[in-house]
Amino acid sequence: MWLVGRPLHSADAPHEAIGKAVGLAVFASDALSSTAYATQEILVVLAAAGLGALHYAFPISVAIVALLAIVTISYEQTIKAYPSGGGAYIVARDNLGELPAQVAGAALLTDYILTVAVSVSSGVAQLVSAFPRMFALRVGISVALVLFITVLNLRGVKESGKFVAIPSYFFIVIMYLTVGVALFRYATGTLGAVADPPPLERLGEAQAVTLFLLLHAFANGTTALTGVEAISNGVTAFKEPRSHNAGVTLMWMAVILGSLFLGISFLAGPIHAVPSEAETVISQIARTAYGGRGLLYLATIGATTLILVMAANTAYAGFPRLSALQAADGFLPRQLTYRGSRLVFSRGIVVLAGAASLLIIVFKASVTGLIPLYAIGVFLSFTLSQAGMTRRWWKAGRLPPDTEIRERDTVLGHDPHWRIKMVSNGVGAVLTAIVAVVFAVTKFREGAWVIVIVIPALVAIFFAIHGHYLEAARVLSLEHFGAPPRVLRHRVILPISGVHRGTVVALRYALALSNDITAVHVSLDADSARRIEQKWGLWGNGVRLVVLESPYRLLLEPLLDYVKEVADRRQPNETLTIVVPQFVPRRWWHQLLHAQTAVILRLALINRPGIVITSVPYQMVPEGDYCAVETD
Amino acid sequence: MWLVGRPLHSADAPHEAIGKAVGLAVFASDALSSTAYATQEILVVLAAAGLGALHYAFPISVAIVALLAIVTISYEQTIKAYPSGGGAYIVARDNLGELPAQVAGAALLTDYILTVAVSVSSGVAQLVSAFPRMFALRVGISVALVLFITVLNLRGVKESGKFVAIPSYFFIVIMYLTVGVALFRYATGTLGAVADPPPLERLGEAQAVTLFLLLHAFANGTTALTGVEAISNGVTAFKEPRSHNAGVTLMWMAVILGSLFLGISFLAGPIHAVPSEAETVISQIARTAYGGRGLLYLATIGATTLILVMAANTAYAGFPRLSALQAADGFLPRQLTYRGSRLVFSRGIVVLAGAASLLIIVFKASVTGLIPLYAIGVFLSFTLSQAGMTRRWWKAGRLPPDTEIRERDTVLGHDPHWRIKMVSNGVGAVLTAIVAVVFAVTKFREGAWVIVIVIPALVAIFFAIHGHYLEAARVLSLEHFGAPPRVLRHRVILPISGVHRGTVVALRYALALSNDITAVHVSLDADSARRIEQKWGLWGNGVRLVVLESPYRLLLEPLLDYVKEVADRRQPNETLTIVVPQFVPRRWWHQLLHAQTAVILRLALINRPGIVITSVPYQMVPEGDYCAVETD
Repeated sequence: MWLVGRPLHSADAPHEAIGKAVGLAVFASDALSSTAYATQEILVVLAAAGLGALHYAFPISVAIVALLAIVTISYEQTIKAYPSGGGAYIVARDNLGELPAQVAGAALLTDYILTVAVSVSSGVAQLVSAFPRMFALRVGISVALVLFITVLNLRGVKESGKFVAIPSYFFIVIMYLTVGVALFRYATGTLGAVADPPPLERLGEAQAVTLFLLLHAFANGTTALTGVEAISNGVTAFKEPRSHNAGVTLMWMAVILGSLFLGISFLAGPIHAVPSEAETVISQIARTAYGGRGLLYLATIGATTLILVMAANTAYAGFPRLSALQAADGFLPRQLTYRGSRLVFSRGIVVLAGAASLLIIVFKASVTGLIPLYAIGVFLSFTLSQAGMTRRWWKAGRLPPDTEIRERDTVLGHDPHWRIKMVSNGVGAVLTAIVAVVFAVTKFREGAWVIVIVIPALVAIFFAIHGHYLEAARVLSLEHFGAPPRVLRHRVILPISGVHRGTVVALRYALALSNDITAVHVSLDADSARRIEQKWGLWGNGVRLVVLESPYRLLLEPLLDYVKEVADRRQPNETLTIVVPQFVPRRWWHQLLHAQTAVILRLALINRPGIVITSVPYQMVPEGDYCAVETD
Repeated sequence: MWLVGRPLHSADAPHEAIGKAVGLAVFASDALSSTAYATQEILVVLAAAGLGALHYAFPISVAIVALLAIVTISYEQTIKAYPSGGGAYIVARDNLGELPAQVAGAALLTDYILTVAVSVSSGVAQLVSAFPRMFALRVGISVALVLFITVLNLRGVKESGKFVAIPSYFFIVIMYLTVGVALFRYATGTLGAVADPPPLERLGEAQAVTLFLLLHAFANGTTALTGVEAISNGVTAFKEPRSHNAGVTLMWMAVILGSLFLGISFLAGPIHAVPSEAETVISQIARTAYGGRGLLYLATIGATTLILVMAANTAYAGFPRLSALQAADGFLPRQLTYRGSRLVFSRGIVVLAGAASLLIIVFKASVTGLIPLYAIGVFLSFTLSQAGMTRRWWKAGRLPPDTEIRERDTVLGHDPHWRIKMVSNGVGAVLTAIVAVVFAVTKFREGAWVIVIVIPALVAIFFAIHGHYLEAARVLSLEHFGAPPRVLRHRVILPISGVHRGTVVALRYALALSNDITAVHVSLDADSARRIEQKWGLWGNGVRLVVLESPYRLLLEPLLDYVKEVADRRQPNETLTIVVPQFVPRRWWHQLLHAQTAVILRLALINRPGIVITSVPYQMVPEGDYCAVETD
């Protein structure tokens, strides 16, 4: 309990809502941290066409920032249209239907898990680069970090928000300083190239610069956009006015992300940065800007490490919210909608932490192994979200002015600018779809195939769950259900292994239920059966006792056969209750020393109608002595 | 089911009893298989004092055979005195008391597990010596063999007996042939020494032949005696007259074991056999006797491998019988006394297989690692058994002639030869105690410390279990228990999450229990609470409905608080029943999609007296439709 803090009252919820500054830290760390690798990923692809091709990185980055702008505008429109939040899932559900919505849900859930796994692994990889002796412990450290973030999040969103605010803002400040110093020195002509650049790996044999190569580089660079959707999913976490605050935060995030990304991509050119596993582009820029591995250099690397780890936190805000939404729609187990004791969806957090830890263990915390699984889900959800928004503007455009349609989470009214909005969302949908396809194709054999299998599989599971809930609702529906008749006959079976206080207490309970009681004893040897019959004569209140011989020396099977026989002769309107005396020892593990008759009967008879199994506990603890009722 | 065969009727039990020939195969394979390593273990110790000391092996073996004779005579007397079986455990319990009995029980159970682990590992090691490429798979093969033997034993004792009869007799015949041929060639002077003997490992620097060294060699050689006790534990498995059949079988086993062991130890001298990890002494003798690695040589090695694996089977006969005895005495969970469906103590077999597999995995199927844990338990139980018999003769001697004392498992009468019998058992007790101590001291750091910890720990657990059963019997005793008063007031709480068929069926059941019913709904949002109140007005039969606000958005906690509050205001003679509607889906794993309210309530309220939790199932399956009762 001390680990997750005291429970919060529902009325506390508004106080838990966060402002723009904290919101930026909570929801933007994922997106901002991707600047740590996006430029490098572009250069890695371009390097296949030789060093001369590296200068394409800046124009490609400009194109990506343009895409970022389109995506941001689209999500701004979404946040305005959906003040209760939900992002791609809700947009797809309201405008495209259940299947696209569940695809978006599966894509986002997968991606949240991968965000945690990739970010933490990448952060630890930075740490390990600095302290190579930690290499052998990287899986353990990664999992420990996941657990650490999990506990923070179980304490509630605001406290975690405060906690991530410091590293997030530290990263933003130090990165602007680094890029600013580098640009100033470039402007004054004192920047120069990287000293002792790392060896260039994967240099191709001057492959031609094809459209496919440029698209591949573009797709790789779009990893910078991962995490942009987080705010639209979490609008409800913001202070009122939610839509406004969330929208402003999204804009700020896009501006910071775009400017940092453009700055880094631009600087990579003049300093002749090379993509390398040995040294990141960020490190090369910082080293060149500050003229060596000084304090500011170390601060830049440290902040990058920290923001990568904190990026995982974004998923901790988004995953439980989305899974609770899907659960409320009946596509995930309903239990995910219950809140834990700190106003967070605890079960979702636990599932996220478990899945991410599993991925980290399976992939041995290797970012290289995890990256090809990443980003497809994001772009799939981008595509569905923007396609949904496109459809929405189409519907809005066809509405006569001053009319409104009440939808599930929002109100749709006529919009005079619907054409330009529809086109901008449509272009975004097409572009992000292309990115998703390019990603899946170019990375298929490296691991993207896993996602190509997992997302449809998840969607199938979601619909299986939904089918079950629909069937259950149909079966349980009170329509065409006649007035329930009273139970006219109540028969009680009381299995006893001996005659003791527990048995007598259970008998007394049985007598309160009905006068039609049969005690049943399974006899393993004749001597003890005779003893029990004698004692029952004394204590059995005249209730009849049936002794079942057990020819196979089994205990439960003869009892089950007897119950089934009685149940088969059951009349309509007759209910059969099996009252099982249960001895409750002082310590729970002492239960292992007693036969769990009620549990086994319950499992064995669960599908038989008209049978109810009741265990009557007899507590061993002195204060729990059932005999207390004797005192009158 | 096909794996363990059809269940056997109790009346089949006598047919399951085994004769002397099958009995020898079932119970003797453990003891006989130890000839495969006992001589070699003596030579390993003697080699520390140089090659010249090896000739002590034969006199030491003679001494061990003398010890074997004493142990055999002692167990003959035990079998006669205890026709219902039980061996060291029962003898110690009847003559020495509970603590020595439980020590014997712990020692024997430990040793049964080790017998399985050591024998199977050793058998696989022989196999691996022949086919070195299997080395990497040895743990897997060993565990697979344990599983194989387990399945055979779950099929029932006789079928397993038949199965082991072939390899057991094959081993006896081929070993007598090998030893016979070697002795014949020795007598005719054509035997000679081992060709190309393996290199002598662990050759000491001509250490002096001390008494300690000879005792150490003697102790090592007494591993030949492991398994001798098995027959006395399993007397009841024999055909009538049980004692006679078991006694004859024991005598035969001792004669075969002693003669083979003496023959092997004698032959080791003239052929100049050397102890080596690379080639066993058996292999050296067989190779020399048959003049090379021919068919008969391979048969000898194969039979040795097989008997080692089959030796594990002995433990499968003894372990479940002993644990059932201890369970019947209340020192192990009572469930161990129930028979499985094939007249064997299935649970004991499963525990044995699990523990042995665990040991094999932990020690990576290394016989060298396991051997120091072995044999202490055997000699501890020998000591306790013979000390018990000594005490018994002392009691018998003090009885006047023609008087008898009825004991638990037997009848004790005056014996005119009590003095000589007491001395022989007393000598045996002292000798086996010395062996146990020498074993524990000389092998302490090699692993015997594990046993020195495990046996007392097991004894402590046994007494803890016994204490619990004694306390339970005391608490449950009907002495000083007044006539049970009737339940005068029966209050029912019906928690509902909605109003549907399951709720209505549960309500109908509740109405059959009492008129004092309160339906309780935990409200997460006001809208749905209003809907439920409306529907309840229609379907609730006038039963009052309490809506609990859930300020923390929790589901179960408000319900628990309400129940506890009601329970605290409970009158004497009032019982509170919580009737929980339970939806039973078509497939069991669909349960994961529904809240398990009854299970959680049961766990949370188990220690509160006067509360009974009943779940009323509503089956989804069409034929399980509770509505069937509507038809009248």
